[in-house]
Amino acid sequence: MTNALHIEPRIIMTPGPAEADPRVLKVMTNPIIGQFDPVFLSLMDDVMAMGRQVFKTSNHYTYLINGTARAGIEALMSAVIEPDDKVYIPIFGRFGHLMAEIATRAKGKVHTTEKPLGEVYTITELKREIDAFKPKVVAIVHGESSTGMMQPLKALGTYCNQHGILLIVDAVATLAGAAFETDAWHIDGVIAGSQKCLSAPAGMALITYNKRIEAIVEKRKKIEQGLDPHSQNPRMMPSNYLDLSQLQAYWDATRLNHHTEATSMLYAMHEALRLTLEEGLAVRIERHALNMRALLAGLKAMNLELFGDKKHLLPTIVCLKVPEAIDPHRIRTALVQDFNIEIAPGFGAIKDEVWRIGQLGYGSRKQNVLSLLTALESVLTDQGMVLEEGRAKAAALAVYQT
Amino acid sequence: MTNALHIEPRIIMTPGPAEADPRVLKVMTNPIIGQFDPVFLSLMDDVMAMGRQVFKTSNHYTYLINGTARAGIEALMSAVIEPDDKVYIPIFGRFGHLMAEIATRAKGKVHTTEKPLGEVYTITELKREIDAFKPKVVAIVHGESSTGMMQPLKALGTYCNQHGILLIVDAVATLAGAAFETDAWHIDGVIAGSQKCLSAPAGMALITYNKRIEAIVEKRKKIEQGLDPHSQNPRMMPSNYLDLSQLQAYWDATRLNHHTEATSMLYAMHEALRLTLEEGLAVRIERHALNMRALLAGLKAMNLELFGDKKHLLPTIVCLKVPEAIDPHRIRTALVQDFNIEIAPGFGAIKDEVWRIGQLGYGSRKQNVLSLLTALESVLTDQGMVLEEGRAKAAALAVYQT
Repeated sequence: MTNALHIEPRIIMTPGPAEADPRVLKVMTNPIIGQFDPVFLSLMDDVMAMGRQVFKTSNHYTYLINGTARAGIEALMSAVIEPDDKVYIPIFGRFGHLMAEIATRAKGKVHTTEKPLGEVYTITELKREIDAFKPKVVAIVHGESSTGMMQPLKALGTYCNQHGILLIVDAVATLAGAAFETDAWHIDGVIAGSQKCLSAPAGMALITYNKRIEAIVEKRKKIEQGLDPHSQNPRMMPSNYLDLSQLQAYWDATRLNHHTEATSMLYAMHEALRLTLEEGLAVRIERHALNMRALLAGLKAMNLELFGDKKHLLPTIVCLKVPEAIDPHRIRTALVQDFNIEIAPGFGAIKDEVWRIGQLGYGSRKQNVLSLLTALESVLTDQGMVLEEGRAKAAALAVYQT
Repeated sequence: MTNALHIEPRIIMTPGPAEADPRVLKVMTNPIIGQFDPVFLSLMDDVMAMGRQVFKTSNHYTYLINGTARAGIEALMSAVIEPDDKVYIPIFGRFGHLMAEIATRAKGKVHTTEKPLGEVYTITELKREIDAFKPKVVAIVHGESSTGMMQPLKALGTYCNQHGILLIVDAVATLAGAAFETDAWHIDGVIAGSQKCLSAPAGMALITYNKRIEAIVEKRKKIEQGLDPHSQNPRMMPSNYLDLSQLQAYWDATRLNHHTEATSMLYAMHEALRLTLEEGLAVRIERHALNMRALLAGLKAMNLELFGDKKHLLPTIVCLKVPEAIDPHRIRTALVQDFNIEIAPGFGAIKDEVWRIGQLGYGSRKQNVLSLLTALESVLTDQGMVLEEGRAKAAALAVYQT
């Protein structure tokens, strides 16, 4: 017989899944109610309203996809991209490749460029590619958790908007942890996940899109035959499960009977959004910035170097270079075994060159920063580095005290 | 500011989402750990092993899809069906239409037949269609929650197996509540949901498939370009998110880094499967059968009539005819308002002709059956029916006492 599950808590300082807020986990113990129960419908409406505030948008369609973040990326991209549509994807890490993969499966004509890992694009570079390729859609990552880089978006959004190009953004690693302005930056569609700065468990995507995307979704509308035997549309989307034309009708007053909403995960997202707004979006973003400044000060005090362009660091995830003669794997193992702290290895080509350290949502707090710095100093010393004891923590504390 | 969520419990006797077992909800408060944490990987392995026992199969690939049941149906069907593949779908209610919809979006050559609502197929009828159409795949629903009917599958499985035809079955409304034998009935692929007889929240699908389907999945394998830039396959599946070739590699020793597993929902499914096996699969199925017998005895004692073929009733969900001169909507409202019990309306063409009553998993219990019968007797009496007080409950109790 399998034993009952019991999980010992860890301090999670990876790019995710991040620590969930205990208050979010707690609401999931509420009993199940029907998906068309008026109480449940009002929770759905709350999620839409709170989602708009967090995305800083007036878009009506702001709702949950019942799947992890990439389900949201696929739902939104495959709704917008029809076969042979021209899509430009400026890649600067793993998740740009994912957008290209999804656009390719949606049968778009995909043009990509790639930046060396650790860099982002200048607006000049982006304009040049856009002018030459003339895409219908540009899809780009805001925060690349694989490299710790954050791409500025405002100038790109303005340019796309001026040229009638749709801009879709993966804000999974940034929303609610870094400044993000859907409407002010002229972004047409955005995807966020549940499990990073919103501090809910993985398994939900939060999306928003404006009337330009809504118009495409409407043109591709196809209601499943068990609900409407006469609905036909040669332009229908490839997936039933991720079909935004039906999903938006479930979330609006039509209340189309599509899937059964993931009840407990919706409760979790309701509470996650509520706690984000209760703290205050600006306050929350400043908390991430402060904790990142303290973390970076501590790392610098140990003479550790950061990976990538210092002007475009993510405030939620940093890539730290592994010092020479240090085994990155042994350090990670020691952090878990001696201090119960998890950090992540690098990804792809920089797998053994960097560690990735995340401080996301509920996990972005002073205690986590100081615990990690102290632990890292200790395990690096164990492995032969000469470090002045307590210097990292002191440097971080100095940041908190200013 | 949005209020904190608080849900008053209801007695849920609909076809779903069903009441979750409180022990399942409770495990979701365990802290988040990393998706490649050895502790988490061992939970994934447990889920596979327990899933095999519940499906009664030796299939290696028995795992979770991070989405509701229809995500599992789509993942499995769109893995098996390639453009122009011949697919036969014998429809006898809403969820047969869903399978046809999904097969059509997967670009199969879809042949359907439809039974009048309330009927199932004889093996003679199925053989005739199969012989004439010669499909590669037959896809069928086991328990139709829209009509309360259960389709016998053993003879169909044997026939498909003899003729090299793949059989895919939607067991969402039956697994762990009615007898289901994946291997003994020669079924190639099966999908179940989290939110019915397994008593977990909606949001996960549990699937299993055998080596014949595994071979197709392998031939369509395509690893996303961010992980393997050289992977190409013109036969790749349309979806990245639901791509079984990558998902199975995440669940096996390859541990391919695809999505981030929905941590808390995996905890829930682990506990749901564990509790199912702790009770004993046969005992659990007999519990559903007993509670259904008691429910039917009580309904009969009120002279209420059942909808559909009495020889093929689902043991989990029954469709009850609305008596003449009774407003079905008023009865449902009164049950919720006066007794906090929810039953469901009919679906589609029989929307106002029947009520659908479910007793699924944790919700399949004597107290729920007796509460509903007593409440129904009361609200029907209020609306003018002449019923002998207490007769329904007594008839049900007589079943429990035999």
